[in-house]
Amino acid sequence: MSVTAAQGFVAGGLASGIKESGDLDLAIVAAAPANARLTTAAGVFTTNLATAPPVLVSREHLRDGHASAVVLNSGNANAATGAPGRRDAQRMCELTAAGLGIDATDVLVCSTGLIGIPLPMSPIEAGIPALAAALEAGPTGGDAAAVAILTTDTISKEACATFEVDGVIMTVGGMAKGAAMLSPAMATMLAVITTDAAVDPRALHAALGGAVDSSFHELLIDGCTSTNDTVLVLASGAAMVGGRPIGIGGSAFHAFSDALAEVCSSLAVQMAGDAEGASKLARVHVRGARTTADARLAARAVAGSQLVQCSINGEDPYWGRVLSELGASGAAIDPDRVEIAYNGIVVCRDGVAAAHDAVTVAAGMAEREIAIDCELHLGRGEATVVFTDLSYGYIDENRATS
Amino acid sequence: MSVTAAQGFVAGGLASGIKESGDLDLAIVAAAPANARLTTAAGVFTTNLATAPPVLVSREHLRDGHASAVVLNSGNANAATGAPGRRDAQRMCELTAAGLGIDATDVLVCSTGLIGIPLPMSPIEAGIPALAAALEAGPTGGDAAAVAILTTDTISKEACATFEVDGVIMTVGGMAKGAAMLSPAMATMLAVITTDAAVDPRALHAALGGAVDSSFHELLIDGCTSTNDTVLVLASGAAMVGGRPIGIGGSAFHAFSDALAEVCSSLAVQMAGDAEGASKLARVHVRGARTTADARLAARAVAGSQLVQCSINGEDPYWGRVLSELGASGAAIDPDRVEIAYNGIVVCRDGVAAAHDAVTVAAGMAEREIAIDCELHLGRGEATVVFTDLSYGYIDENRATS
Repeated sequence: MSVTAAQGFVAGGLASGIKESGDLDLAIVAAAPANARLTTAAGVFTTNLATAPPVLVSREHLRDGHASAVVLNSGNANAATGAPGRRDAQRMCELTAAGLGIDATDVLVCSTGLIGIPLPMSPIEAGIPALAAALEAGPTGGDAAAVAILTTDTISKEACATFEVDGVIMTVGGMAKGAAMLSPAMATMLAVITTDAAVDPRALHAALGGAVDSSFHELLIDGCTSTNDTVLVLASGAAMVGGRPIGIGGSAFHAFSDALAEVCSSLAVQMAGDAEGASKLARVHVRGARTTADARLAARAVAGSQLVQCSINGEDPYWGRVLSELGASGAAIDPDRVEIAYNGIVVCRDGVAAAHDAVTVAAGMAEREIAIDCELHLGRGEATVVFTDLSYGYIDENRATS
Repeated sequence: MSVTAAQGFVAGGLASGIKESGDLDLAIVAAAPANARLTTAAGVFTTNLATAPPVLVSREHLRDGHASAVVLNSGNANAATGAPGRRDAQRMCELTAAGLGIDATDVLVCSTGLIGIPLPMSPIEAGIPALAAALEAGPTGGDAAAVAILTTDTISKEACATFEVDGVIMTVGGMAKGAAMLSPAMATMLAVITTDAAVDPRALHAALGGAVDSSFHELLIDGCTSTNDTVLVLASGAAMVGGRPIGIGGSAFHAFSDALAEVCSSLAVQMAGDAEGASKLARVHVRGARTTADARLAARAVAGSQLVQCSINGEDPYWGRVLSELGASGAAIDPDRVEIAYNGIVVCRDGVAAAHDAVTVAAGMAEREIAIDCELHLGRGEATVVFTDLSYGYIDENRATS
């Protein structure tokens, strides 16, 4: 149960025929009719300048901080499709709005799949009305929606957290897809999150920004930032009818923000765990950088290095590559002060090899999860990036589109 | 024949025992005794802050623009080795100087191989004097030196060009190693180039900077910038005894610069062709960027993309990934104006799919060399980057150090 865990939401998934495989490829998440009018929404989108039409349309529809439905398709990214692509994205909103009895400007749209191919509109023209008529509350609807947004993912990703404000338990639930083109600046990833709290649009936007920074933005699979990356959150207010919406600051805002961050983190880790072809889940933590920005640069350089990724694949604790990436990252480092540890065991101190128990380090490298800690001893900047190994499987998945 | 193609140089290679395989691992390139005093030198070094000790020592020895010998070892990078590593690099220069009867400050030093392991000095203490006593002019010495600097390379890289000044034919010859950690900011690559022209140190430095910009800096294999990258050039003046050294500007300078650039380009292409595990040699050319800097950003983003590299491996002309990388590169682009061609056939125009002959495009993708042209239609900035596909072989080569 994911996007329907929170009260006041319905969802569903359908095989419309966009995917030749016959798999589910169309999803809708919507506020239940009683909640639609008051539902607030916020989004974080790709920074890629080759922005896909659905991103352009969703941004436009989010300007007023209100939206009550999201329509999503997999199997085609509707990217690099020009003006016809913009019309198609708009049309997806209109069809959804007609099916739900709401305004098209209150519908957000996401697409994921191959770039550069016009969206096949006839399955969509038939599919959206059928799906809109069959949306369900509870697990059935949410689980189907989570499956319908997958592309090369092998499993659906769902997460849920609760928080309490003035004795009322509220829920945040979400779904995501993404298994490559993952980078700290996001990627071919989509996530839709819902909550039954009532949240002021500005507070929703602020909380989402923070949650994305500490989750999806700390994930790097191949450093590729996609044309379609989108993270959306909708707040129905169904659990606090009549209550005052949560605004920025204060304990309710922090409780909500924490729950939202927890859901985003869980989804991000699930995405890394399902990364195309990956056999390892690695986490590099840089401490003691001159600034946070430097720490991020350094952590991303290590995580994004094909050589480091290959070492992880080969279970080789070759810290020389980590040191080299720190040095080439653009972050300030004093190589003579760098300390590097694999799974908590220091293998490099003061920039040179440190005596260590090689058998224990080797045993740690054989685990599925690997932790690399880098202490720069220059300041207080810290950052973490989650990444994976580079494997035959990644190449197999990406060498051909068909 | 490479570093000994130009008059006034001797060279040699020796198996000292640094490599357990028993392969050649020690090389010296030196001006012949008659030319040593007047030989000028220049270098371009890694920008990695985790700079290897031999780079620090060579930079120091190059300050006066004079050096007459280079000693190089493979099998150990003498990187991340701290103060002992600096003493070892200095000691390599002293041993070479003693063998050749010159000052240690006129010796440059390069190391390549694994990072973080102290240099084994006993084979070096014995090997350098033996090698210095046996240096040869002509092909024998140069070819052995070119082999002795290799690590994961499968073939040695040598190049040669001539130019004419006032009726005198002069030669530029060089050798290089490098098959991974190649990035536009250079990498685990070493190159030594010699010429029998007499060249003023400032002019030598200027010509080398230009040549490196249009060759090694346009090469990207895995985006990794190493701790040891070094390109050196020595000018003996042996072909123009008594002539005035070539200074900056003027036709002699341009003739020399062109020959130097030709040698560097040839070595760079040989390095790309021998890139670890690569089955394809690709070249992305970005035109019409707002600035040259933007063109470089865009070309490097395409070349450095694991997804694009996988597409090339799979012979898949998936231009959507190229467009996505252009959009995420940080360069200014207007996606609606982008044109992308594979091997001269336009597959994307105005940012959307362009009708094209898919059979001809597919046939082109099956070739070993692939050209990707991106026209941004925003200005006059241009840049080229040479890269390779991402293959099982790359992973095999880099997943373990032993």
